[in-house]
Amino acid sequence: MSFTNNVNGTSSTETLDSPFIKAIVQQFRGQDSYGTYRNWSDELLLKPFIVSKQKKREISVEGEVDPMTQARIMAFYRAVAACIEKETGLLSQVVIDLSHEGFGWALIFSGRLLLVAKTLRDAHRFGFDSLEKLAEEGEKFVQSAVDLAKRFPEVGRI
Amino acid sequence: MSFTNNVNGTSSTETLDSPFIKAIVQQFRGQDSYGTYRNWSDELLLKPFIVSKQKKREISVEGEVDPMTQARIMAFYRAVAACIEKETGLLSQVVIDLSHEGFGWALIFSGRLLLVAKTLRDAHRFGFDSLEKLAEEGEKFVQSAVDLAKRFPEVGRI
Repeated sequence: MSFTNNVNGTSSTETLDSPFIKAIVQQFRGQDSYGTYRNWSDELLLKPFIVSKQKKREISVEGEVDPMTQARIMAFYRAVAACIEKETGLLSQVVIDLSHEGFGWALIFSGRLLLVAKTLRDAHRFGFDSLEKLAEEGEKFVQSAVDLAKRFPEVGRI
Repeated sequence: MSFTNNVNGTSSTETLDSPFIKAIVQQFRGQDSYGTYRNWSDELLLKPFIVSKQKKREISVEGEVDPMTQARIMAFYRAVAACIEKETGLLSQVVIDLSHEGFGWALIFSGRLLLVAKTLRDAHRFGFDSLEKLAEEGEKFVQSAVDLAKRFPEVGRI
């Protein structure tokens, strides 16, 4: 992973400090009972989330989605949920429903309020252009969920 | 299936006319492109939904949930969604998320409103004591969803 500045002038080092990126790293470190990732840097942990357009084209969308890809999708949305909790105090459930063809839903809900409802397709190719893009996408979900939670607090607390 | 009256004095014939039971039958007939069920009576179609307590105990909860059982769970919640639509005009999505261990969620949502959020466990044993019970359980979901949709119309139409 390169540490050169991107077009916006944000370096990867700065991105690594973003709350969403920290939350996603925490998803791995928090469940690392065997210490597998103990000696891995955050960059190394996050590397599989970065999938170039070229690379995506090379990944077949046939058959079952790879378990490691499924785990990354789960980690992404769990990190979104963790950030939502931090900002709103709402505990939420994360449900990933994936068919064998890589189609499905990523849902995050609290009470009867759906904070995130994202259709998934070609989930085999889940990934982001860059670390910045990963942070940006995650934070977009968090922000829109937080807005919704503030707009309909009663539904989120049913 | 017997046609004797149950304790409430409702006969199975009357139950077969209930809106929920009709909706569940419709789930099968509507998707029966090959005419497999054309000559089946409604009772015969619904029979696998009736699982006695004794029978449930005999079904192992190990491994994958049988595809036919999964199809019945889907048909049940799709029928709930169809009845909700009839009463509220809200189109909804049905998501069934089942782990290999038969645990998971049945979710029905419209806009950002979760009309049904039911945890599933031992899904291998999905079934009801009687046709009356099947109708009763289905209608309970519909009623509570309709109440919710009326309470938070704005969230259901996002």
